[in-house]
Amino acid sequence: MKLASLKSTSCRDGELCLVSKYLSTATCVSHIVPTLQHALDDWEKYEPALNLLYVQLNAGEVRDVFSFDPALMSSPLPRAYQWVDGSAYVNHVELVRKARGVDMPSNFWTDPLVYQGGSDGFLGPRDPILVPSEAFGIDFEAEVAVITDDVPIGVNAKKAASHIRLLMLVNDVSLRNLIPDELAKGFGFFQSKPASSFSPIAVTPDELTPYWDGQRLRLPLVSHLNDTLFGEPNAGVDMTFSFPELIAHAAKTRTLGAGSIVGSGTVSNLDRSKGSSCIAEKRMLEILSDGKPSTPFMKYGDKIHIEMKDTNGQSIFGAIEQEVRQS
Amino acid sequence: MKLASLKSTSCRDGELCLVSKYLSTATCVSHIVPTLQHALDDWEKYEPALNLLYVQLNAGEVRDVFSFDPALMSSPLPRAYQWVDGSAYVNHVELVRKARGVDMPSNFWTDPLVYQGGSDGFLGPRDPILVPSEAFGIDFEAEVAVITDDVPIGVNAKKAASHIRLLMLVNDVSLRNLIPDELAKGFGFFQSKPASSFSPIAVTPDELTPYWDGQRLRLPLVSHLNDTLFGEPNAGVDMTFSFPELIAHAAKTRTLGAGSIVGSGTVSNLDRSKGSSCIAEKRMLEILSDGKPSTPFMKYGDKIHIEMKDTNGQSIFGAIEQEVRQS
Repeated sequence: MKLASLKSTSCRDGELCLVSKYLSTATCVSHIVPTLQHALDDWEKYEPALNLLYVQLNAGEVRDVFSFDPALMSSPLPRAYQWVDGSAYVNHVELVRKARGVDMPSNFWTDPLVYQGGSDGFLGPRDPILVPSEAFGIDFEAEVAVITDDVPIGVNAKKAASHIRLLMLVNDVSLRNLIPDELAKGFGFFQSKPASSFSPIAVTPDELTPYWDGQRLRLPLVSHLNDTLFGEPNAGVDMTFSFPELIAHAAKTRTLGAGSIVGSGTVSNLDRSKGSSCIAEKRMLEILSDGKPSTPFMKYGDKIHIEMKDTNGQSIFGAIEQEVRQS
Repeated sequence: MKLASLKSTSCRDGELCLVSKYLSTATCVSHIVPTLQHALDDWEKYEPALNLLYVQLNAGEVRDVFSFDPALMSSPLPRAYQWVDGSAYVNHVELVRKARGVDMPSNFWTDPLVYQGGSDGFLGPRDPILVPSEAFGIDFEAEVAVITDDVPIGVNAKKAASHIRLLMLVNDVSLRNLIPDELAKGFGFFQSKPASSFSPIAVTPDELTPYWDGQRLRLPLVSHLNDTLFGEPNAGVDMTFSFPELIAHAAKTRTLGAGSIVGSGTVSNLDRSKGSSCIAEKRMLEILSDGKPSTPFMKYGDKIHIEMKDTNGQSIFGAIEQEVRQS
């Protein structure tokens, strides 16, 4: 299934829609369940009816359809109760540290690094990124994320896999120049991680055969900055920790409620010819090769486009396409 | 107004209730608005009807009432979209650092320290605290928190004050022995901050005259560990950053959605005769005076009681009363 949330003036959580496999048409499903959070709260109950309607939608048998327009969509979950973002591509972490001249502790290869994100309001996939100042060092981060149902405390990675209900793409907007001072205070990110945005469509794992193996999504994640290719690393390559491992890490001392979003962190391949999924990584590579960075962070008016296509060139999640503007 | 959420098998967010001023009776308000999150999403719309019913409840004019029992309540928001916890009692931070032998940067007195908490599932005020291992170093943290409506990006402290809709108490459960390794990784807390719990009742600011001045709540916050007084520092004393200042800090680069919870951090007075609001602080004082800590962290079966009474001895928010158990 492919699910999206239509922006609504009457409901902050949008109106849940099914989107056809090739993203041409959509239909609202409020007669089944009003919002994606509702559906995730009781997935077993709603999934059969949604699935049936999805089959009909793809067969052209649904009457009440409209042309799918990503600009009308919010993030699949316009707000969520849990957003935990990993840093699963450890080579990226190592690189960032190297450019700073500090070693990475060896346990970073065995103990996942995650941060608790804020989730009270996500940007839609075509919403502008509003930032008070260009001096904050505006960056995108292209990632993959999963959405879980209820995950019990202490779940192991093997069992965690069965709790993955949906996948989507993320732009984890970061304000690089605020990060050093904020992390130096010791309590992690807050001001330096403003609202993230997600792909217009969230997709069930069964849709992703043969690219999804229950652990990793094995396709390139393609980022264009101002219409120029910036990176296309494969999300299934060099992902040190799988999604089930990230979930198990997050659930070590707490349950995760239905609708929890777990992110991969910036997708990054050791093969540097694949480019980068954030400006910071490119700047680190420039520092290592030239002694100083040359690619600037984003300015007002800059545009970022993030998309993942299957091997037939078909967009899976729709594109995140955002412009940076002054708030 | 005093508001609470009755646990419900059919709704994860509970059923919104009004509780009488002296916590004797309660009445469900689902005919006005089903949940506290709904009410906060559209506060201007629902407040008048809730206020009218509250007056009638206190006058004994409501028929459909029941005895108020905190054990039947979830946290006022059983799950939330935003939980940002401050460290506003800077003398506490300074003390913790002193015991570790490290200086506190001077800007900690001028730049608020906050962390992004997880909010997908809060414990009820009488729910057990389930922890996989006593070796994690189980601690309570008694705090005050506010709940906001929609806060615009970049709001200043003066304007932030008008966005405070409710106040409540918090037990910000911490796993002390997981903290050093987790913070050393650089991205803040995750596993070391399991689910928090909140007082059974959330209270509108007007109820708190003359103790609430729009900035701080000037009453002792009383913690008992296993029925022994542990601390009773005044929440209005030595709070370096006011709630409006904490909100303004949190909203510097993002909006805060309706229902955002902003915590004070562990309440702590420079006057050490007032005791402490967490075991860690007591242990730090023991380290400074005796060279080593003597108060152990919590064990399975230990009970924590957190409450705030007005100057007439009347409980304002009801008590948080929790036992630690193995998950």
